[in-house]
Amino acid sequence: MEKCDVETPAPLVDRARMERNVRRMVEVARQAGVRLRPHTKTHKCPAIAKIQLSLGAEGIAVAKLGEAEAMAAAGIDDILVAYPIVGEKKLGRFLDLNARIRAACTTDSYEVAAGISSAAQARGQTARLLVEVDSGMRRVGLPPGEAVLGLVRRIADLPGVHFAGLLTHGGMDRHARDAGELPRLARQECEACLDTAELLRRQGFPVEEISVGTTPLARFGGAPGITELRPGTFVFYDVSMVSLGAATFDDCAYTLLTTVVSRHRDRLVIDAGSKTLSNDRPAGHLYTSGFGVVVDHPHLRVDRLSEDHGVLTITGEGPLPAIGDKLEIIPNHACQSVNLHDSLFVVEDGKVTGDWRVEGRGKTV
Amino acid sequence: MEKCDVETPAPLVDRARMERNVRRMVEVARQAGVRLRPHTKTHKCPAIAKIQLSLGAEGIAVAKLGEAEAMAAAGIDDILVAYPIVGEKKLGRFLDLNARIRAACTTDSYEVAAGISSAAQARGQTARLLVEVDSGMRRVGLPPGEAVLGLVRRIADLPGVHFAGLLTHGGMDRHARDAGELPRLARQECEACLDTAELLRRQGFPVEEISVGTTPLARFGGAPGITELRPGTFVFYDVSMVSLGAATFDDCAYTLLTTVVSRHRDRLVIDAGSKTLSNDRPAGHLYTSGFGVVVDHPHLRVDRLSEDHGVLTITGEGPLPAIGDKLEIIPNHACQSVNLHDSLFVVEDGKVTGDWRVEGRGKTV
Repeated sequence: MEKCDVETPAPLVDRARMERNVRRMVEVARQAGVRLRPHTKTHKCPAIAKIQLSLGAEGIAVAKLGEAEAMAAAGIDDILVAYPIVGEKKLGRFLDLNARIRAACTTDSYEVAAGISSAAQARGQTARLLVEVDSGMRRVGLPPGEAVLGLVRRIADLPGVHFAGLLTHGGMDRHARDAGELPRLARQECEACLDTAELLRRQGFPVEEISVGTTPLARFGGAPGITELRPGTFVFYDVSMVSLGAATFDDCAYTLLTTVVSRHRDRLVIDAGSKTLSNDRPAGHLYTSGFGVVVDHPHLRVDRLSEDHGVLTITGEGPLPAIGDKLEIIPNHACQSVNLHDSLFVVEDGKVTGDWRVEGRGKTV
Repeated sequence: MEKCDVETPAPLVDRARMERNVRRMVEVARQAGVRLRPHTKTHKCPAIAKIQLSLGAEGIAVAKLGEAEAMAAAGIDDILVAYPIVGEKKLGRFLDLNARIRAACTTDSYEVAAGISSAAQARGQTARLLVEVDSGMRRVGLPPGEAVLGLVRRIADLPGVHFAGLLTHGGMDRHARDAGELPRLARQECEACLDTAELLRRQGFPVEEISVGTTPLARFGGAPGITELRPGTFVFYDVSMVSLGAATFDDCAYTLLTTVVSRHRDRLVIDAGSKTLSNDRPAGHLYTSGFGVVVDHPHLRVDRLSEDHGVLTITGEGPLPAIGDKLEIIPNHACQSVNLHDSLFVVEDGKVTGDWRVEGRGKTV
């Protein structure tokens, strides 16, 4: 089937671009001497995770236990749940995984570590635990240095727990509105962990892993001493990544195919809205408005989204699509758009060659 | 099970509040002498649609054919697809529905009407078609008056099509930042259709239905001559509806139960983010920031969402939840949050008594 014959709105993945994105990031990691552990929250497809692994990635990271379970069910055997696991049921599920595959999870508190310890001990297991360092995002994570040391001192001897190292997420939420800031943020992300690791080692605590995250910083390859990169969005890229200077539109492997359903002098309406593209605003500085970019139509701006309508404003000269014509939209945030679909169409040389189930979607707990 | 024992993040529906919301809107419609046709995009649950019908609603509206199919499969037999149906496959699916139940769809163009006409004619069917009037939202819809008359003239004699009346959606996207504007907008929405209907009737075109939409305007009950109200969000309400002055927090029947997973001096982190709450900003004027409201914790503000983390800023004095404690969040936009879940937990007197499948979720085409 030609890709333009798919019923819309339809999420499309350009397989060649996706694989090129993965190969390039594998090469970044190889040159830096670190492992690439893709965060699979972007695609949530075991099929894509397996492609990433076949191209050189080593293990995956997820945010949700349910996603880890879906990935493990598909045969993936090295999964970092980069999230604090809280509550008896979730601890039990994590330990079920831990019994079958190489698993790890994260914490920034004694409470979470103690919960894992007692659950693991009761089952005669040892759980690998990374401590999350806040390298500037102010989300989960302890400040670098003494605060981390204080926690590691308390958890190092907990039964059932193996302190496996440090993890940070150099998130872009509150800074980096300019691509020029990215190298500085990448250094900051790495230094927060490396300085802390040095402090820990001086105090006699081995630090095996130092894992840094996030796509816009990953291409700098970490720094000597970092052991793994954990980017997610790089598999598809999106308007936000282009806007941050971390990719070009030619790298964007995920688009939403839509149909024009209404046409007026000043606007077109397409059959994609916030329930298929999401209402996420763009990050970065190049694109600061709009809800996606229309491929090959620079004179159309995705101005407004309702739940199932997108309103495109006509901002310049150019051919105007007719009712029934198809348009491809690159979303602001691919991870959010993917999460609104049950499966993704695989496109090779302009033809749909299959589909990938978004098995991790809806696995919210 | 007590509601606080559900694994989080968990979407909860307070059934008593939900039914009260429905009864009140049924009463608004009854007093105004119009029918209530709930838009089911808010809940996408056949089970809830059936409750709405049992409490006095007459028929439902949906935006997507896939949602219509899910509702029809559950036995609902009067469905307005309030959307322009474009493309051969979708037309075939609509006519499959039209053969089984009382269906209708909408258009603002001759192209869409002509497509329906030829597909319906080929199958020996007649499709009921409403023409969409733009009462100010500038989305789908023709300007009131002559533009609508021009279209109705062209479609009135199309074979396979029955012009059944007018429809508008007095959407709140670009105006109504103040509850004081709501009565004016409600009048504007109705007058756009009523004036146009009068023009059509003078020219000899009967106008059977005049359908107006949107929750914040629905409680004004339309106006004499309006035949149906088509609100959606009223079944649950949300922060945006409170912010617009269309409801109170006591009316909000949908919440997301979350768990605190990280705690710092300045912030708490919960296990709900944009992939369970959505990144929708609030409409209205009372709440202009934040990503939801924490029930019973006015000193906590949902300041930032990542995909699977919510960062609550501590803005005042009050008890601080510990790691592992549960919090309920009223989302900015219930329709978006619901669409991120496969099923909703039914809560009665604080206990979970069942769940409702969100059958319409993922039926994006």
